[in-house]
Amino acid sequence: MANEAPSTRADLREALIAAATRTIEKEGWQAVKARALAADVGCAVGSIYNVFPDIDALILDVKARMLDVFEAEVQRQLGAFENRGPDAAADRFLDLGRVYLDFAARNWKVWLGMFEHRAATSPSMDAYMLRLDVILVNIEAPLDALLPGLQPLARRYLARTLFAAVHGVVSLGLDQKLGDVPLPDLHAQVRGLIQAALRGYREGGAPTVQEVAL
Amino acid sequence: MANEAPSTRADLREALIAAATRTIEKEGWQAVKARALAADVGCAVGSIYNVFPDIDALILDVKARMLDVFEAEVQRQLGAFENRGPDAAADRFLDLGRVYLDFAARNWKVWLGMFEHRAATSPSMDAYMLRLDVILVNIEAPLDALLPGLQPLARRYLARTLFAAVHGVVSLGLDQKLGDVPLPDLHAQVRGLIQAALRGYREGGAPTVQEVAL
Repeated sequence: MANEAPSTRADLREALIAAATRTIEKEGWQAVKARALAADVGCAVGSIYNVFPDIDALILDVKARMLDVFEAEVQRQLGAFENRGPDAAADRFLDLGRVYLDFAARNWKVWLGMFEHRAATSPSMDAYMLRLDVILVNIEAPLDALLPGLQPLARRYLARTLFAAVHGVVSLGLDQKLGDVPLPDLHAQVRGLIQAALRGYREGGAPTVQEVAL
Repeated sequence: MANEAPSTRADLREALIAAATRTIEKEGWQAVKARALAADVGCAVGSIYNVFPDIDALILDVKARMLDVFEAEVQRQLGAFENRGPDAAADRFLDLGRVYLDFAARNWKVWLGMFEHRAATSPSMDAYMLRLDVILVNIEAPLDALLPGLQPLARRYLARTLFAAVHGVVSLGLDQKLGDVPLPDLHAQVRGLIQAALRGYREGGAPTVQEVAL
């Protein structure tokens, strides 16, 4: 379709992010190319580099937006976390796992692609990592309620380990890497893993920094 | 360098697999292209399609080889599994996790790329999945010792869940997706996750098929 060129820097940024998101949804992040984006939003190829230092920075912005959308989904479905003791915290983890799997399933091409895109260290990368920290705080808060006495650094490591473990089950499952797993079965796998791991961490007591990192 | 064209179909297959492996190690699986491979092994582009139906089938063969190399590494480092009770089985899982992380770290570009490459269903895909089953049997066997009474289908699902969870920690860790984690810390995270999950599964009793899959 014919596009009118966005008239401000902010409009151009938004138009480019929207165009890149559509491309990633359809063809994956490898298909995000300056020439096609420029044609899509109706600007000169060179104009892209007035608002983004490079294509990687643009992709990082798409990824940061996706993290924001996920965070908004968590807040919409689950609300803010309140400490009501370890059992309620364990339930919160099950809820987070369920929301994560459903969100990844609905957005799987963009979501799994986010983890396959690799960018060099840059200011855009720092901004993206800060957004990711917001997501991980959603896991750190109930860990505090589940394992009283957990040191901040141990909590930080443990939150990342739990996120990565659930992400592994979600990503290999949605991608059918270990065989075809229907979504309800995948939900049961995520739930079973979270239940077992949390039961194990609780039985073993709050791990020290030395136990979760050398 | 100048190459002499391989003289038999078997030699050509091997030469193409070796060339594709080198390309994946250097540039990732997206860089595996017929023209460059043909130049690399010294054959005509069309000859590739005498031994592989398409490039995806060739990449699947590289991936199947990697699974064989990993399986050989497990046997070399750990030997065959023998049932010496639940505690020894739990130790076996920790050993498997350690060998997996070290292997993925040494081969990370090919290994993580294996999981990002997506191929359509084909006879090559079936052959690859059969190789993957051999790897997963390494996890199913100690599960039997750890959770006596586990039903075969529940064991199958649980082995895949545990593999995917550990793979998630290994892949996001090696790829520094959640921040920069030194290898010794990543080993501690994998060990801590396996310990907690196994403790939790043991405390909860052998899960039924309904608990690991709807």
